[in-house]
Amino acid sequence: MNRAFYKQQAERAVRVLESAGIVLTEAEKERIEVADFGLGMPNEVGLQLLTYVNTERVCAKEMVLFAHQTCPEHKHVCGTENGTAYEGKEETFRVRKGKCYLYVAGTGSADAISCLLPPTTVTVFREIVLRAGEQYTIYPNTPHWFCAGEEDTVISEFSTKSRDESDVFADARIVRIPRIEEEQEETC
Amino acid sequence: MNRAFYKQQAERAVRVLESAGIVLTEAEKERIEVADFGLGMPNEVGLQLLTYVNTERVCAKEMVLFAHQTCPEHKHVCGTENGTAYEGKEETFRVRKGKCYLYVAGTGSADAISCLLPPTTVTVFREIVLRAGEQYTIYPNTPHWFCAGEEDTVISEFSTKSRDESDVFADARIVRIPRIEEEQEETC
Repeated sequence: MNRAFYKQQAERAVRVLESAGIVLTEAEKERIEVADFGLGMPNEVGLQLLTYVNTERVCAKEMVLFAHQTCPEHKHVCGTENGTAYEGKEETFRVRKGKCYLYVAGTGSADAISCLLPPTTVTVFREIVLRAGEQYTIYPNTPHWFCAGEEDTVISEFSTKSRDESDVFADARIVRIPRIEEEQEETC
Repeated sequence: MNRAFYKQQAERAVRVLESAGIVLTEAEKERIEVADFGLGMPNEVGLQLLTYVNTERVCAKEMVLFAHQTCPEHKHVCGTENGTAYEGKEETFRVRKGKCYLYVAGTGSADAISCLLPPTTVTVFREIVLRAGEQYTIYPNTPHWFCAGEEDTVISEFSTKSRDESDVFADARIVRIPRIEEEQEETC
């Protein structure tokens, strides 16, 4: 992504959050994270996030999925940080606006889901439909992916500490932390 | 509190949550908790809560304080549960609507605070003013109390596991878990 596109997606996410009645400070609006997962198809595969708090014990975020946008399949695994072992992340998704299709392991198949199949590797197809006011808790080591329905969608996430850089994605091409290409100034 | 009053306060809390743009399921509206802390002055000392999730690791709630209502001073301490030690609760308050005056230890005094002094024991007077979109993290063993300004106020809480029954209140009269008096049927 180049910086101009990143900014445009972030501003769009702010508008979606505000349309859900969520009040943000000006500083928060400036630090919306736009993830394209390194695939260069941000309208199909992407996620916009605002992390409110992320301590050693607790994390809370708002996530925005634009209509039909998918967050690709991943899981939160255990690991070691500064010599101390940690458990995988537990997270509860609560939809505030719109509709989220969440996929986990279980009965289901690629040809029977409500979402368009994303252009990334997906291996789980049990569909959980979350409308505004509905929620679902995902425990560690649970492969999952999710996409928005026809509306831009806002999902609150309540979780243990986030270590996004340690998420394990099903598609090996994915790069979780966004890379922003700076425009080169023209030289004579 | 009798059941009719409890229901009335719960319904009022639902209206406040909805006015903040928060979407609830019908089942959630039915399980709003109304705490009067056993003092019988619910319009001065009370809190309305909806717990979205409370697992071993993560808890998320919405809290409603009616205008000028106070949640009395308490702290979240460590303890033991089923033979296993646990740390005190860590919680982040994020105001969604209205204004919250939060009091913790530090510079301040009873005669210099913006709130009315509540009719309960309070020992800390450093005032933190949180408007919509602002937040503050309270670590374990931190005495704190908080009250709403002139508006009904909504506060999201993101925390580790809640064990409300183990909260330590500064005022020994307080009973955290509400007691509902059932109306006695008249007998001849």
